[in-house]
Amino acid sequence: MTSTYSVVDLIRAKREGQTLEPDQITWLIRAYTDGIVADEQMSAMAMAVYFQGLDDAELSTWTTAMIDSGERMTFDGLSRPTVDKHSTGGVGDKITLPLAPLVAACGAAVPQLSGRGLGHTGGTLDKMEAIPGWRADLSHDEMVCQLENVGAVICAAGPGLAPADKKLYALRDVTGTVESIPLIASSIMSKKIAEGTDSLVLDVKTGSGAFMKTEEDARELARRLVGLGKAAGVHTTALLTRMDVPLGYACGNGIEVAESLEVLAGGGPADVVELTLALARQMLQSAGLDSIDPADVLANGAAMDVWRTMVRAQGGDPDAPLPVARHSQDVVATEAGVITGIDAMSIGMAAWRLGAGRARKEDPVQAAAGVMLRVRPGDRVISGQPLATLLTDTPASIAGAEEAITDAFTVGQSFQPQHIVADTIVA
Amino acid sequence: MTSTYSVVDLIRAKREGQTLEPDQITWLIRAYTDGIVADEQMSAMAMAVYFQGLDDAELSTWTTAMIDSGERMTFDGLSRPTVDKHSTGGVGDKITLPLAPLVAACGAAVPQLSGRGLGHTGGTLDKMEAIPGWRADLSHDEMVCQLENVGAVICAAGPGLAPADKKLYALRDVTGTVESIPLIASSIMSKKIAEGTDSLVLDVKTGSGAFMKTEEDARELARRLVGLGKAAGVHTTALLTRMDVPLGYACGNGIEVAESLEVLAGGGPADVVELTLALARQMLQSAGLDSIDPADVLANGAAMDVWRTMVRAQGGDPDAPLPVARHSQDVVATEAGVITGIDAMSIGMAAWRLGAGRARKEDPVQAAAGVMLRVRPGDRVISGQPLATLLTDTPASIAGAEEAITDAFTVGQSFQPQHIVADTIVA
Repeated sequence: MTSTYSVVDLIRAKREGQTLEPDQITWLIRAYTDGIVADEQMSAMAMAVYFQGLDDAELSTWTTAMIDSGERMTFDGLSRPTVDKHSTGGVGDKITLPLAPLVAACGAAVPQLSGRGLGHTGGTLDKMEAIPGWRADLSHDEMVCQLENVGAVICAAGPGLAPADKKLYALRDVTGTVESIPLIASSIMSKKIAEGTDSLVLDVKTGSGAFMKTEEDARELARRLVGLGKAAGVHTTALLTRMDVPLGYACGNGIEVAESLEVLAGGGPADVVELTLALARQMLQSAGLDSIDPADVLANGAAMDVWRTMVRAQGGDPDAPLPVARHSQDVVATEAGVITGIDAMSIGMAAWRLGAGRARKEDPVQAAAGVMLRVRPGDRVISGQPLATLLTDTPASIAGAEEAITDAFTVGQSFQPQHIVADTIVA
Repeated sequence: MTSTYSVVDLIRAKREGQTLEPDQITWLIRAYTDGIVADEQMSAMAMAVYFQGLDDAELSTWTTAMIDSGERMTFDGLSRPTVDKHSTGGVGDKITLPLAPLVAACGAAVPQLSGRGLGHTGGTLDKMEAIPGWRADLSHDEMVCQLENVGAVICAAGPGLAPADKKLYALRDVTGTVESIPLIASSIMSKKIAEGTDSLVLDVKTGSGAFMKTEEDARELARRLVGLGKAAGVHTTALLTRMDVPLGYACGNGIEVAESLEVLAGGGPADVVELTLALARQMLQSAGLDSIDPADVLANGAAMDVWRTMVRAQGGDPDAPLPVARHSQDVVATEAGVITGIDAMSIGMAAWRLGAGRARKEDPVQAAAGVMLRVRPGDRVISGQPLATLLTDTPASIAGAEEAITDAFTVGQSFQPQHIVADTIVA
């Protein structure tokens, strides 16, 4: 690539709904990464993309350019097939914790390069860091070694993967341009493709607690993600899953680890188990290991064994008690009836206010804070019965959490349960 | 105003087509001027406004906030009514030069705060600076004194008028967000209202050589401009005028001064005279001086007298010879017929390449460069007859100008002339 372009011409072209040429997109992403295209130009471009979109060819070039801004990892030397999972984020979404050791116990290598939370959805690393001694930062060699020997690793993505995405995401975050399906898709897939996994299963969430509020948007995101994976030679499928109600009972860091341990021990909330098994089956199918039933591997304790080895390999003590919040307060029902809904966004906001999440990247999180639900949709309640327990080390946060949670529970006459997996999207 | 807002929330609200509250807009413009809202945020907002627009109330608040970012001038002490003209810019548009002294000669005070050219349309100050000795920069006191004693002043706008507009316009220029009708309207009117004129006549151009290519867009811009003037208590009207063909024969700096002198001497190209008189009549009507016929004032030499006094008052010598280009080359007809069109944009580009315009703000312009048309639409030509003469001090630029002008002339069988003023828009 030797051409240079006028970025103003490119912004205007996209603004007018024109299709950008591959060379133009490749130049744009490189010039932005190199500081030749300024932030104020890229944010205008991002807003133009918000309105005019990117077609499949544009999106593929855009994503490749983001990948090419950094390094590509490879797990070619492993004896196991690699398979990764990515969730678009939900409230109480601790699925990675039981899933990674479960799929590893079935014979795959699961490299879970994860992030920290921002806003109402928690981050996998924040949850794992509730385990005393556990560390998120591994070298590439440590990661490969652990994948070969243990089969699962949950760790922080290094700064070398898709630095253009890192820069562009930070810009979108402050310029009101996050909510663009192609830009979301390229952000997710640039990191996942650069990571070098053989196959990938996406958990694309839809509903009031998800980033994609409508099923239509979630389907479109899933279609774009799967298409990008296929174009890059990564075997990619997506499950479309419901995120109107938090996953399980626990929404916080340490309490989600505890709930994950229940699942690994063969118990746990039905919805968490259902989604963990659905994702595990899809991952095993992608990895060519679908003769194994992951339900057996949960039941026989093999997944728990991998969990313990995995935690220990990263300095954590799987037997150490998890932190306990210093303050707690119940939220009680004010009327009798059947719980028909628990608004995931409200619960996420309450947990965030209690200290489980962060408002800015540099904020710390509380390991013990969060919302412990005491009921699930379908449960019958009477007035005065606890619906949830608020947990925090900072009692001043409780009033704000109560305000957030106040209308989260809807009480009615009857409840019709739905399967959590709405659909499977393949290329 | 004491509120502060999240700029990301405001960008998202506009992006989603919501109406911003007056306090939000006032805060936004002030925070941007003060550097609290960053360039990359304001460019995303500008792009959102490009797609979602601003309603009349939003636009009025936005414009008032831009005015309030700087000083407001006043001409209250003058014995003459003040009336100003603004053109949205066209090729060969030297109308300010004969118009300002003409309207002054009829009894009004005409404060023409003007700019320099960028791109294919020239700037009034660039044209005036072709006059040896003439200076564009006047103090406010000099301006007021000249308005009272001479009646007309053409000078540079000081940096104190609407600094928010200055900052925002520079941002829009590099972020592909210039072409937004409400943002164009607020940019023009913030400066004109801050200038303190009693009344204002707008020359809103439409056609291939204009910023507004379609009559529909030009009408919408005129409606927004007139509405903003009315809301601010400035008597404002707009003429919708055609800009498919350059105005007159001369497109350049010095050669446009020469053509303006022909008009002031009672001659000049018919279209330049027609538009000068139409605008003069509208300005005189706004100023309550419509008992005077400006055609008489052109014919009797009074407008020329004001011109000479005005030029002299700003250090210029009205009798000094205008600069002459060192190189010239004719462009000739390749077929016989009637000239049916002369594409204004192509002529503007050719003049710009010859050195009459600038690509960047800091570039100099050539006083003598430009395109001198030798024909007008309706003229019958034979093969080999000169259609235009290219003028420049830099002969290397001629090839590029020839390329720009090559398809500018259309030759056909017959031509139906149109009046240059398509419509008059009042509040």
